[in-house]
Amino acid sequence: MAILKIRLIISSFEKHVSFLKSDIEKSLNKLPIDNKPKYLYDPIRYIINGKGKRLRPILVHLVGHSYSADPEDMMKASMAVELLHNFTLVHDDIMDNDSFRHGKPTVHKKWDEPTAILSGDALFVLSQLLLTGFPEIIHQRFNEVSLNICEGQGMDKEFENDTSISMGQYLIMIGKKTGALLGLCAQLGALLSGLKKEDAHFLFEYGLNLGLAFQIQDDLLEIFGDESSMGKSLGSDISKNKQTALTILARDDNAKRWASFTDNYSKISDYQTYFDKNGIRYKLEESIEHYINKANSALNSAPKSNKDHLQKFTTLILKRKF
Amino acid sequence: MAILKIRLIISSFEKHVSFLKSDIEKSLNKLPIDNKPKYLYDPIRYIINGKGKRLRPILVHLVGHSYSADPEDMMKASMAVELLHNFTLVHDDIMDNDSFRHGKPTVHKKWDEPTAILSGDALFVLSQLLLTGFPEIIHQRFNEVSLNICEGQGMDKEFENDTSISMGQYLIMIGKKTGALLGLCAQLGALLSGLKKEDAHFLFEYGLNLGLAFQIQDDLLEIFGDESSMGKSLGSDISKNKQTALTILARDDNAKRWASFTDNYSKISDYQTYFDKNGIRYKLEESIEHYINKANSALNSAPKSNKDHLQKFTTLILKRKF
Repeated sequence: MAILKIRLIISSFEKHVSFLKSDIEKSLNKLPIDNKPKYLYDPIRYIINGKGKRLRPILVHLVGHSYSADPEDMMKASMAVELLHNFTLVHDDIMDNDSFRHGKPTVHKKWDEPTAILSGDALFVLSQLLLTGFPEIIHQRFNEVSLNICEGQGMDKEFENDTSISMGQYLIMIGKKTGALLGLCAQLGALLSGLKKEDAHFLFEYGLNLGLAFQIQDDLLEIFGDESSMGKSLGSDISKNKQTALTILARDDNAKRWASFTDNYSKISDYQTYFDKNGIRYKLEESIEHYINKANSALNSAPKSNKDHLQKFTTLILKRKF
Repeated sequence: MAILKIRLIISSFEKHVSFLKSDIEKSLNKLPIDNKPKYLYDPIRYIINGKGKRLRPILVHLVGHSYSADPEDMMKASMAVELLHNFTLVHDDIMDNDSFRHGKPTVHKKWDEPTAILSGDALFVLSQLLLTGFPEIIHQRFNEVSLNICEGQGMDKEFENDTSISMGQYLIMIGKKTGALLGLCAQLGALLSGLKKEDAHFLFEYGLNLGLAFQIQDDLLEIFGDESSMGKSLGSDISKNKQTALTILARDDNAKRWASFTDNYSKISDYQTYFDKNGIRYKLEESIEHYINKANSALNSAPKSNKDHLQKFTTLILKRKF
């Protein structure tokens, strides 16, 4: 009976989340965006209609709801973070020369680089305009985190081909590139309801640690996942000489063995075997658990309904259920 | 005696402007920008230290001073528009594949495209952060105008190779791409002092029309100017099939003659002769005067000190004195 009850609760939470997702997508589709110039707005519509998981705007709603934020404000703030996120994806895809995103051609592949640069820029402007009328602290946090993301991407590019990067540097990089935005999303719902920045800080901590767990898991899935659900080919980061949690740990663990392996093997199944056999996969699974625990502990001071929702959210997104 | 007096007044205004310029550059150099990641902040420092004319931030100060805006606020707002302007230049230079800007290699030439995309993005974020604590209307206008600039650039790209573009469409494009930002600069100084948007609208009109005059003059200088002061090679827009005020007028005037000319001639001196002989240059000089007059008429309702300053500013920037 107990097991059945838990299943039912999770299932009703999943329904709630999938309802939020479709609500967010409806609102994104209704954004008052001009038709002309088509050069600018056709790709913007293409991006907005992409098959994203929308987990960042969902997080804004989950927290905002617990703090009784105004529904219209929540929707605006949640769309702002989604546009910010999409802006960074469009530009990152150019910088990394990625051809597919969510199973569709990236903007610079479907159109060209100038189109992708400009439509990314305009997405970011649109995200700022969605914040019109919001408390000053929201403008400030939104842009502080946007700068974190740029810094994180700068570090990521700097780290390419640099085999001296430590796990510590890597964690700072993903904290800025992935963690800070999830932290912001968790904070926003509370800030919208007038909570002070200091009082909403634990929510930032929650999102930041969730982001670390999520990104390390992403690195693992990039080797051990399946291509269709990742929407990109396995091993693509490693083939671009990107530093990932796996390559850094493998090097830290035994630099000689790792160098000799990469000199002689390139198939994804060889990598899978290497990371499995040498305990890299296991260590990173432990690491993910560590950051999940940190995320959940950050919620100790949260109101009960908020805590329940967010812990379920953690489970859901790490299960990659949507 | 009267002539001497006017010269002295202009000269003291020029001194004032050049003092403002150096003050703005000092503040830009003192912006609290991190050193790391170098991938991001080295190009940002390179851009900020570029040899721009700084006419947009100067305009913020000139108006702000007339309305007794707080000096620190004026400086922040003026740096924000300068960073916004530089962000658009860095990205436009990639999109147009330009190699030089203010006599120095463009960011994507000195580094590479990913570096230029990212440092442009971060400049825009830094501009938003400079607005922290400002009245809501300033955030809103800043971003509305940023969207105008993206739309203007979108139209500019759309117009490439399109020989059906009318002068009307061209004016809308340059109004968005160049005029709106000068309009914003003129408005900002007044908005900072608490003037309502409606009451500051004549200042937007001033800047917008000044921008139209400035851009048409830019098109003329691109053919009739000298390379060293333009910081780029003459005729480069035409060689990229960009629509300029000259090519549109030449086509409107006599499409057959223009087509036969472009089929047979490509030297800059041939273009100069063509535009001179067929009255295109003269028509555009008249057009510049028309928009200068509109800019100055917009100032009819301005306080006297403001009006005097801005009319002198108009003269100064159209003389390309700095």
